[in-house]
Amino acid sequence: MGFAPVYLDWNATTPLDPVVREAMLPWLGGAEPVRFGNASSRHEYGRQARAAVDEARARVAAAVGAHATEVVFTSGGSEANNLFLKGAAAMLRPGRVAVSAIEHPCVREPARQLARAGWDMHEIAVDGEGRIDDRAWQAVLAQRPRLVSVMQANNETGVVQDIAALAAQARAVGAWFHTDAVQALGKIETDFRALGVHAMTLSAHKIGGPLGAGALVVDKRVELSPLIAGGGQERGLRSGTENVAAIVGFGVACELARARREAEAGRLGELRDGIARALHKLGARIFGAGAPRLPNTVFFALEPIEGETLVGKLDRAGFACASGSACSSANPEPSRTLLAMGVAPEIARGALRVSLGRDTRADDTERFIAALARVVDELKNLASVAVRPSAGLNPEHG
Amino acid sequence: MGFAPVYLDWNATTPLDPVVREAMLPWLGGAEPVRFGNASSRHEYGRQARAAVDEARARVAAAVGAHATEVVFTSGGSEANNLFLKGAAAMLRPGRVAVSAIEHPCVREPARQLARAGWDMHEIAVDGEGRIDDRAWQAVLAQRPRLVSVMQANNETGVVQDIAALAAQARAVGAWFHTDAVQALGKIETDFRALGVHAMTLSAHKIGGPLGAGALVVDKRVELSPLIAGGGQERGLRSGTENVAAIVGFGVACELARARREAEAGRLGELRDGIARALHKLGARIFGAGAPRLPNTVFFALEPIEGETLVGKLDRAGFACASGSACSSANPEPSRTLLAMGVAPEIARGALRVSLGRDTRADDTERFIAALARVVDELKNLASVAVRPSAGLNPEHG
Repeated sequence: MGFAPVYLDWNATTPLDPVVREAMLPWLGGAEPVRFGNASSRHEYGRQARAAVDEARARVAAAVGAHATEVVFTSGGSEANNLFLKGAAAMLRPGRVAVSAIEHPCVREPARQLARAGWDMHEIAVDGEGRIDDRAWQAVLAQRPRLVSVMQANNETGVVQDIAALAAQARAVGAWFHTDAVQALGKIETDFRALGVHAMTLSAHKIGGPLGAGALVVDKRVELSPLIAGGGQERGLRSGTENVAAIVGFGVACELARARREAEAGRLGELRDGIARALHKLGARIFGAGAPRLPNTVFFALEPIEGETLVGKLDRAGFACASGSACSSANPEPSRTLLAMGVAPEIARGALRVSLGRDTRADDTERFIAALARVVDELKNLASVAVRPSAGLNPEHG
Repeated sequence: MGFAPVYLDWNATTPLDPVVREAMLPWLGGAEPVRFGNASSRHEYGRQARAAVDEARARVAAAVGAHATEVVFTSGGSEANNLFLKGAAAMLRPGRVAVSAIEHPCVREPARQLARAGWDMHEIAVDGEGRIDDRAWQAVLAQRPRLVSVMQANNETGVVQDIAALAAQARAVGAWFHTDAVQALGKIETDFRALGVHAMTLSAHKIGGPLGAGALVVDKRVELSPLIAGGGQERGLRSGTENVAAIVGFGVACELARARREAEAGRLGELRDGIARALHKLGARIFGAGAPRLPNTVFFALEPIEGETLVGKLDRAGFACASGSACSSANPEPSRTLLAMGVAPEIARGALRVSLGRDTRADDTERFIAALARVVDELKNLASVAVRPSAGLNPEHG
C-alpha cells in the first residue's frame, strides 16, 4: 500500500483477507468459474448458490462449535444483536431485559426500544476494570430477567467477561442469555457449547471477512420473531436474498480465524505488550489492565491530552487509531464504557484505542511508539505555553 | 462462461456488472488503490470510506430524482420494505395498513406482523390483468388507511401499476404511501418526485449491482423507528457499519441503469416480444398481457404442463428460468400473484417466468424458443401415453 498510514484500528474493521477475497471473487464474476445466482432459484445457478451458502454455514458453525442449523446469517453484527433482542422479546410477554452497561450501542439501543414498548430495562454495572460487577449481577438475577445480553469482549477495552459463569447463572433463573462475540471471534476461544449461551452474535468484517455478513448463532429452543420478514430464508428467521459472496467470504474467514487464532494471539499479544511498556514510560493509564483482555487491544489515556487531538495528530503522522468505538466516533461524548468503569469524564475524553491485526508487524508498533512519544512531547510543549482554559485540554489537568 | 446455461432469470438476481465490479474491487483489496475502513472512523481510512458512501448516496439519489439526504442504505430490498412498514407503524397508533394482494412476501409478511400487533391489515385486490382493481382501491381509501404499499412493477408478471395516481389518492386521505420499486428500477422510469410517493424501496442486485445493498428512499416527513438500532448510522434509521464495497457498487449500478435504461428497454422489449410470438404459436397464455408491463419479463403457462416440470426440463437443456418468484420457489404452492388475478390454481401451477437482462442476446432467446418447443413436444407426447391422473399433469387439461 506504499505510503498508506499504518492501520491500528482492527477492532473497527479489517481489510479483506486475500484468501477470503479469492474465495469470493467467482461470486463477483471476477474469477473463473464465474458464479452467481439466487439461492432460492431451482436451476443450476440457484443450486450452486445454495451449495455455497450451505458450505459457508458449516464453516461458521465449526468455528464456534455449533451445529450448522443453529446459524442464522444476517447482514452483520448490529442486525444479529437486534434480531436476538427484539426477535426474542416479540415472542414473550414484556418483562425485564438486562444488558451490561458497556454493551455496544447495537445492544443497548434495541434494549432501549424494548423499554419504550413496556419492558423493564436494566443496565448491569461493571467494576473499575470493566468486568461485570458481582453484586450488581446478583441483584439482576434476583429480579429474574427474561433476556440478558453481555458481550464476550469489549470493543474498546478488550476486557473479556466470564460468559460461561454468567450464562449458567442466568439459565438457572430462566433467562435467555445472549453474548455479542463480535470482538472475541478469532482472538480468544468462542465456543457456543462451552460458553453455554442461548445465542451469540458474530461478524465477518472484524475477522478479515467482508462487510455485509454476520450471524446469530441460536439455540433452537429460543423462539424468535424475524426482524426482516418475507421470503422465508434462514428458516424464516431472516428473509432477503442470501448475500452469497459475503456469506462465502464469512465462511472462509471463520476457517482462517480458527486455524490462526492461537498463533496470532501470541504474536499480537507480544506486540501489544511492547506498546503497553512504552505507554507506562509515557505515564499512560491503561484501562482494564487488571482484567483478562483481548491480546490485540490496548485502550489508554495520556493526561491531559484529548483523545481526539491525539487521533488527529497521529493520523497526520501516518497512524490510524481510534479515540473510542468507531460507531460512536461521530459523537464527541466520552466513552460510555469508561464512564461505566467509573473513569472521570475528563480522563475518558483522553482515551485512545490501538488495536492490532493480521498485517501488524513489529516495525509498525515500534514506529507507532516513536511517533506517539513525539506527538505527546509536542502537545505537552504546546500545553505549557497555552493560555488556559485551552481548547482540547482540560484545565484541571493542564 | 463456456457451456454455462443461458440465464433467463434476471428478475431473481443479476450477475455483477463488470463496471460495477471494477468500482468495488479497491474496497475488496483486489485493485489499486486498495481501500478499506469503517466510515465512522476519524482517520484517513475512515474518511475515504465516508467519502465513497457519500458519493454512492448521491448516485442512488440521482437515479430516482431524490435528494441524497432521502436515501437510507439497507442490506437490500427486503430490509427496506420491512423498515418502511414496521418503522413507520412503530411511530403511529395502530390503524389500517393496506398492501396489494400481489406484493412480494417481504411486504406482505411485515404487514401480517403488524396485523398480529393490533393493526387492521387489508390486501388490495387486483383485476384479471394484475392491475389494482379500482373498486377495491376506492373501498380501501374510504377506510382511511395509515400505511399503503403497492409495488411499482410485479416481479412475476412484470405488470406496472399507476403509482402516481395511487399515491396522490392515498395522500389525499392522509396515508403514507410506499412503493417497492425493486423490479422497476432500471427497466422503467422510477422518479421519486414524479411518482409522489412517501417512500420507495430499491435493490442493487436486481440491476447489476451486488447483493447486500438496497435503499429506502424516504420523505423526511415520514417518521421511522429503526429496525436495526445501534451506532446511529444512516441518520439513526439504520445502524451497522456501512457495507462500503456494496454501497459503492450500488451507486455505480444506479448510474449505469440510468444511462442505459431507455436503450435496454427497447432492446429487451424486442427480444421479449419475439418470445411472446413464439409462445402464442405454442398456445401459451401470457399473464398480464393486457396491462403495461416491464419490457424484460414474460410470465406464461402452457397447459397442461406443470411449471416445475418445465423449469426442470429447461434447466437440463441449458436454460435457467423460474417457475414463480425466486423467493418462494421452495414453496410448491401456485403463484399468489396469479391466484390474486383470478387464475385457476391448476393453470397457475403451470406458470413459467422468463426474464431478460444485460447479457441476453437474440441468439439466446432464439435457442430458448427452439428448446421450449422441443420440451413441450416431448411432454405432450409423454402425456398422451401416460395413465391418468399422472404426476405433474392436471387430468382436466390433459
